[in-house]
Amino acid sequence: MTNSDIFIGETIGTAVLILLGGGVVAAITLKNSKARGAGWLAITFGWGFGVLTAVYVASPLSGAHLNPAVTLGIAIINGGWDKVPIYLAGQLLGAMIGATLMIIAYYGQFRSHLTDREVIGDPADLPIEGGHTGKPGPVLGIFSTGPEIRVIWQNLATEIIGTAVLVLAVLTQGLNAAGDGLGTLGGLITALVVVGIGLSLGGPTGYAINPARDLGPRIIHALMPLPNKGGSDWGYAWIPIVGPLAGGALAAGLYDLAFA
Amino acid sequence: MTNSDIFIGETIGTAVLILLGGGVVAAITLKNSKARGAGWLAITFGWGFGVLTAVYVASPLSGAHLNPAVTLGIAIINGGWDKVPIYLAGQLLGAMIGATLMIIAYYGQFRSHLTDREVIGDPADLPIEGGHTGKPGPVLGIFSTGPEIRVIWQNLATEIIGTAVLVLAVLTQGLNAAGDGLGTLGGLITALVVVGIGLSLGGPTGYAINPARDLGPRIIHALMPLPNKGGSDWGYAWIPIVGPLAGGALAAGLYDLAFA
Amino acid sequence: MTNSDIFIGETIGTAVLILLGGGVVAAITLKNSKARGAGWLAITFGWGFGVLTAVYVASPLSGAHLNPAVTLGIAIINGGWDKVPIYLAGQLLGAMIGATLMIIAYYGQFRSHLTDREVIGDPADLPIEGGHTGKPGPVLGIFSTGPEIRVIWQNLATEIIGTAVLVLAVLTQGLNAAGDGLGTLGGLITALVVVGIGLSLGGPTGYAINPARDLGPRIIHALMPLPNKGGSDWGYAWIPIVGPLAGGALAAGLYDLAFA
Amino acid sequence: MTNSDIFIGETIGTAVLILLGGGVVAAITLKNSKARGAGWLAITFGWGFGVLTAVYVASPLSGAHLNPAVTLGIAIINGGWDKVPIYLAGQLLGAMIGATLMIIAYYGQFRSHLTDREVIGDPADLPIEGGHTGKPGPVLGIFSTGPEIRVIWQNLATEIIGTAVLVLAVLTQGLNAAGDGLGTLGGLITALVVVGIGLSLGGPTGYAINPARDLGPRIIHALMPLPNKGGSDWGYAWIPIVGPLAGGALAAGLYDLAFA
Repeated sequence: MTNSDIFIGETIGTAVLILLGGGVVAAITLKNSKARGAGWLAITFGWGFGVLTAVYVASPLSGAHLNPAVTLGIAIINGGWDKVPIYLAGQLLGAMIGATLMIIAYYGQFRSHLTDREVIGDPADLPIEGGHTGKPGPVLGIFSTGPEIRVIWQNLATEIIGTAVLVLAVLTQGLNAAGDGLGTLGGLITALVVVGIGLSLGGPTGYAINPARDLGPRIIHALMPLPNKGGSDWGYAWIPIVGPLAGGALAAGLYDLAFA
Repeated sequence: MTNSDIFIGETIGTAVLILLGGGVVAAITLKNSKARGAGWLAITFGWGFGVLTAVYVASPLSGAHLNPAVTLGIAIINGGWDKVPIYLAGQLLGAMIGATLMIIAYYGQFRSHLTDREVIGDPADLPIEGGHTGKPGPVLGIFSTGPEIRVIWQNLATEIIGTAVLVLAVLTQGLNAAGDGLGTLGGLITALVVVGIGLSLGGPTGYAINPARDLGPRIIHALMPLPNKGGSDWGYAWIPIVGPLAGGALAAGLYDLAFA
Repeated sequence: MTNSDIFIGETIGTAVLILLGGGVVAAITLKNSKARGAGWLAITFGWGFGVLTAVYVASPLSGAHLNPAVTLGIAIINGGWDKVPIYLAGQLLGAMIGATLMIIAYYGQFRSHLTDREVIGDPADLPIEGGHTGKPGPVLGIFSTGPEIRVIWQNLATEIIGTAVLVLAVLTQGLNAAGDGLGTLGGLITALVVVGIGLSLGGPTGYAINPARDLGPRIIHALMPLPNKGGSDWGYAWIPIVGPLAGGALAAGLYDLAFA
Repeated sequence: MTNSDIFIGETIGTAVLILLGGGVVAAITLKNSKARGAGWLAITFGWGFGVLTAVYVASPLSGAHLNPAVTLGIAIINGGWDKVPIYLAGQLLGAMIGATLMIIAYYGQFRSHLTDREVIGDPADLPIEGGHTGKPGPVLGIFSTGPEIRVIWQNLATEIIGTAVLVLAVLTQGLNAAGDGLGTLGGLITALVVVGIGLSLGGPTGYAINPARDLGPRIIHALMPLPNKGGSDWGYAWIPIVGPLAGGALAAGLYDLAFA
């Protein structure tokens, strides 16, 4: 794989991942969406099938890491540290592109939701400030994760545990594929593992388990001039970076001890 | 593949797709259906498993495009433009047959729903006009898509983005299959990608992402003498044709730049 | 495959199918079940994964037809009519065994539900007649299918259409497997096709799409001395036999014309 | 496989299984969880994808039994009884580790739920006794199974039937893999079989179908100093051990008669 292929593959793949992953939360959260209120199971399947789509799209070019914690875990096991910055750059850029595409796809829904009234005509015509009734609420949850109970050690622990499961599953899949013909079934397995982590470990923090997935959309949230969008909660932003990276490293260490 | 195989394969496959895809919306919408109110997750899985069934049925004959946007994207990459009209004709005819079969399967439910009363005896005996109480509501949503917020550029953008994801996934799957033994796993992957697009990008417009899927059933809606069926909304009908075709072409262009 | 293997395989497989398929309806319907009210999506996935389990269990012995409509469709295409009675006998016996095992697994729930009160101590101690409050309701729906709107031609049409989709998918899967390495992926595909048919075509009649699945449990419903169980609705029983057989034959005819 | 690989593989795999399986019940049950109230379908998919993750992680080391009933069934068919204690020790230890990790991931949620008030600041600061309003309820259901109707013979019967289906599916999968290229698809099939058993047979007792899955977390429940946690219900604890072991032996006997 050339550096260019890696960068392009990770950018396109992570863009697809965040477009679909952010999209399902938008679909379930925003006013004037047909999927509004479809619930947690829909969110976790939406994110998981976003992983599925992104993995199969990106894998011919970059092997489809799409996640700095996965890149870190693989580098610890297999080396190739010189490629790591290329992977990370593509992942962060892709996540920002994906979040932007998600806003475009749901632009009218954002305007309607954030101004809390029915949209008549072009939603871009809505006044940006004032005029709305009720409580339009922030939309950061569509972009980035946040904890239900804000306690640093617990939030870190949940992200570390969730990411360690993910990266361990990704690393052992290489063994399955090599010894037993798993082949491209691996993308499907990984996607369902992500659905599982969401269902089982997503309750406390919303399962970032991927620093690019959280940071990229948070930057876009901060930059986009959406009315009443609420704050970007930068005080929390380091946790879904440090936690997943620590989880990835932990999984690589465990893999090295037990499987290598 | 002979022209005859292509035409028959696309006709049968798209008929199965629309029978099951329209069927799940009928099942969840209409009165006197056991599935009434089963929700958005059921709709997206129903459409996705409709794709699954249709792809495996059609692929031995036609390779299972089942979607003019897919046919366009593949033609841009691989050529074979002389086959394109045959694919499109089969897809449109199949979609019309599928919508008709769906009406037959749910005929009593349509009659009951549209006249808003309990059906006693043969629903064909219900008076076509008058006599109903309440608001039986239109049923176009069972046949074709429509936007929650009607703004041309946004509706087009959502359909373009959703279809580009679909067609990119279909095109890159060829690479996975060639290099890595994906084989007939591809139909399952594509079906789950469609579930994912529905969950993540279906909120604003109902995700046509396929011109035949929208136009064929809309024609049937216009032709069928169902009581109180409401209008066929022809003013919107061009968007789920132009948007998906543009999305398919965009995906082919991106594929050509990045993957070929 | 010996006659004995076929008979045993179909008996065990269909028993597993009906145990799990009937079980999910019991789980969602009956009082004192943890799954009560889990909804239509749970029912359709439960039946589908019942097919999955049954197909993989039975396929080494009998090829896993598990459905007289599938047996008929395969016989029309491939011959082997002398084996047909063995398949049918195993399927009917298996369905009766499966329904009986389902009653055993949910025995306390049946007693509690049918007498409409909390069970304290052994549910077998509850008085069989009288004493219950409210309306314990019949439980035939846990065993066999029934229409929401009872009109012969429509109920037949829905069953014919649903079964034709199933049998066509089963027959074309043989082509996929032969030409393209589908291998044992076929059981998974078939299971998801059945989830799809349930979601999309189950609304009007509850999708028997299998004469043994309907008749076997109906016989057990008629025989079991459950209190307040309600009638076995023998007047409807021929429709989920004739409809699926006609659908299977139709699919075989279509396959013969288009694919063979 | 060395004894060390078996022990480590079963420990890691069962830890992942119980972390994810217990996690999904915590996610759906506890206060201040984003997944609260997501329902039975989410629980069954969460457990199933926990099996999926655990099987693929453990299989390169130990073949991924992860369940004493599976180990027993395989030993009855294939011998290798000297390895059985190693499997069981790894499974029980892994289940205890998994339950502990689950408490860490949901620690704040446990504190909030068990004291029935909003957590402000570190949940560890909450007073352990008194002060809560309402009825914080026991949390044993997050760790271990319990019956809706407590009748020994029925609870045993349900666990025997459910486990027999599971172990029969695991044993016959070996035949599919050998004869037909199932390869590593087996972990996915098994995971969906477990979703199916949960949906169809989980209603009466919560489907332990695995002695380690029930006993390990029950020990952790008894040991952990969670406030208001309720009793560990040791009177029931033997049923999800004896039932699944009997079911596994029954399935092995049936397999030996019909398939070997």
